[in-house]
Amino acid sequence: MSEPTPIPTHWYNIAADLPVPPPPHLHPGTREPVTPDDMAPLFASALIEQEASTEQYIEIPEPIREVYKTWRPAPLIRAREFEKALGTPARIYVKYEGVSPVGSHKTNTAVAQAYYNAQDGITKITTETGAGQWGSALSFACAKFGIDLEVWQVRASYNSKPYRRFLMETYGGTVHPSPSPLTESGRKILAEHPDTPGSLGIAVSEAVEVAAADPNARYALGSVLNHVVLHQTVIGLEAVEQLRAAGEENADVVFGCAGGGSNLAGLAFPFIREVLHGRATTRIMAVEPAACPSITKGEYRYDHGDVAGLTPLLKMHTLGQDFVPDPIHAGGLRYHGMAPLLSHTVELGYVTGQAVDQTESFAAGVLFARAEGIVPAPESSHAIAACAEYAKRLTEPEVLVIGLSGHGMLDLPAYHEFMQGNLVSTVGDVS
Amino acid sequence: MSEPTPIPTHWYNIAADLPVPPPPHLHPGTREPVTPDDMAPLFASALIEQEASTEQYIEIPEPIREVYKTWRPAPLIRAREFEKALGTPARIYVKYEGVSPVGSHKTNTAVAQAYYNAQDGITKITTETGAGQWGSALSFACAKFGIDLEVWQVRASYNSKPYRRFLMETYGGTVHPSPSPLTESGRKILAEHPDTPGSLGIAVSEAVEVAAADPNARYALGSVLNHVVLHQTVIGLEAVEQLRAAGEENADVVFGCAGGGSNLAGLAFPFIREVLHGRATTRIMAVEPAACPSITKGEYRYDHGDVAGLTPLLKMHTLGQDFVPDPIHAGGLRYHGMAPLLSHTVELGYVTGQAVDQTESFAAGVLFARAEGIVPAPESSHAIAACAEYAKRLTEPEVLVIGLSGHGMLDLPAYHEFMQGNLVSTVGDVS
Repeated sequence: MSEPTPIPTHWYNIAADLPVPPPPHLHPGTREPVTPDDMAPLFASALIEQEASTEQYIEIPEPIREVYKTWRPAPLIRAREFEKALGTPARIYVKYEGVSPVGSHKTNTAVAQAYYNAQDGITKITTETGAGQWGSALSFACAKFGIDLEVWQVRASYNSKPYRRFLMETYGGTVHPSPSPLTESGRKILAEHPDTPGSLGIAVSEAVEVAAADPNARYALGSVLNHVVLHQTVIGLEAVEQLRAAGEENADVVFGCAGGGSNLAGLAFPFIREVLHGRATTRIMAVEPAACPSITKGEYRYDHGDVAGLTPLLKMHTLGQDFVPDPIHAGGLRYHGMAPLLSHTVELGYVTGQAVDQTESFAAGVLFARAEGIVPAPESSHAIAACAEYAKRLTEPEVLVIGLSGHGMLDLPAYHEFMQGNLVSTVGDVS
Repeated sequence: MSEPTPIPTHWYNIAADLPVPPPPHLHPGTREPVTPDDMAPLFASALIEQEASTEQYIEIPEPIREVYKTWRPAPLIRAREFEKALGTPARIYVKYEGVSPVGSHKTNTAVAQAYYNAQDGITKITTETGAGQWGSALSFACAKFGIDLEVWQVRASYNSKPYRRFLMETYGGTVHPSPSPLTESGRKILAEHPDTPGSLGIAVSEAVEVAAADPNARYALGSVLNHVVLHQTVIGLEAVEQLRAAGEENADVVFGCAGGGSNLAGLAFPFIREVLHGRATTRIMAVEPAACPSITKGEYRYDHGDVAGLTPLLKMHTLGQDFVPDPIHAGGLRYHGMAPLLSHTVELGYVTGQAVDQTESFAAGVLFARAEGIVPAPESSHAIAACAEYAKRLTEPEVLVIGLSGHGMLDLPAYHEFMQGNLVSTVGDVS
């Protein structure tokens, strides 16, 4: 671990620094750029402002920094044993977000979103969740700021992966299996398909429907949008400083897993800032699962963020709003699109996509766990696998940074399945 | 969180400072003080030396500190929201050991024990585990130092609580349900009681039997013994410094949960050092479960550390080597005896015992999780409950420290049961 560095006082907004401004979100009906008024029924006012901000730095309010202090600065760990296990001349650093109370980076934006909603006098937030990482982070954050939280969790996960549901409930959140009889969209699906396992798309519709109908409620999203990416930049801002404190001038390559994109963008954008200002030549690898390769195999175009088409149109790399990825264990990477800001930096050449197979990523996860002690979230293992493959081929020392977005303590059954040889390869599963 | 403090360079040995030396361990056959030779087949040489050391400080070897650096110094968190929820004038600090890779303080001694065994050229360690906290910590540590680990896990836990078993396996440990057909003691029990759920006592016998028969193997214990307590003093050494860095002169009361005693002793002994040297008047509360109250209801006498009577006789507070506590969820507190060094400080008046009911401790755990975000291990919740009760009655500010020995991410089903009203009170269950 490097020397401790202070917690950032500001988030970094890459939109202000890029040579080409990012394309705006469009209204799904008019296809005109969305206005703050369009978004007001769903999001807190400060978040709407941040979504379109062109300021380079946005101050982190003191109450948010107070909560961050519980686990931030998150450690930057030199992975010496992992280097040895790989036999690489590289110096590998991991930025570890698993020290947050819920065990992942999701809390960075959850706390900010809950805070700004509380500032607006909002008393209830609705959201959807799949395996439950985002739902538990928001549940924690809402408990902090005295906001009621209702979560629609994809029914298949609600039934088969109860630990994160129990976590949401422990924080005081209310969790419904989705589809639920509580909403019109839920009732409609249940009438047609009473045994449906549910999907994130349906769960979004339910959460949005409830928030839109209640003037005291708002909706919250855990990735993709610009304000979410903004909040996650604390990861990279700390990492850039910690790397210097550890005696490294710059990173040569940064590896992060990319699902909706906020984790990678949060880590990478402060490194890209150094590139944009001529202070480094760092390359960024966006590592996605072979089962859901939006950057490497998707199209770059306007698409909806959800299945039902309720969200604004976002310019992004997408596999199509109807794409249903295979049920891989890295649930946090099963999203059809990619954060528009991250997609934009891919198009501008600052970020490169790379797809990694599920079994390969678990093998890297086990190797990492035995070397460094931390069992990575299956999502993060994708970044570890890509870094390992790269590092093994090096003949000269390079400085590599891995975004370790969370731990895998609640994903241990998946590790067990992998070690029993029960996990299938996902290469070539994309259709 | 207070300002970062350095990781300690030495462990603190309270035996050197106490006005009355602690009673020695006795050989179970001769009832004479055990000699290093008696212990050589089971423990690494440095650990045997530490067990009887009268040096005040023992240097922490560099390779151990290197591993500690992954998560140490563990944070000391000011629990402001918890204070508010209690409506107390107290300033409450929690020393949080859940940031370790396996999520508890057990790693502090696991790393040291694995290191010293590796130094002796030992290639295999055997141990027992109940719910799996100790087994997973040692599994992590053995992976670090290239030692094979065989764990005998109580069969009931092996079958019903698989997450920690998966964790041990992910680190490369081999886990057997106990009783197993691999040992004489296991085969004997299985022949008589083929359906036995197993017990820690049986699992100890199996692990000891295998280690004793193999000149390249040694046995490891996760609590109770002096060398284990010694390793855990990193907790309190950091906490004393962190409290000062946070602007507090001293703690008024320190609360820690006590099962085998090493967690509480590790936190408390450096605070008692301040008392012994006239620099503070801190009181220490050893909080034990009402279902297993060795300090508050046990006798102070020589007793065996295990059911089979294979270990040395230890002078301690004990409920008797045959005592079988109710199956409460704080599995780490279900031990019939108490660390001899801790028992000794109780007798000398530096530590006071207090028993807390299971449901009361879960209620405090939920309150704490909602206030501070961290879901405590059910063991740690006992300390939180005792502190909460004390803090609520205060009318003047005091400085209180809670030992938060681990997180409860793998104990969420127990929280769920509690919130469903399915947990029974344990008060009065002791017979």
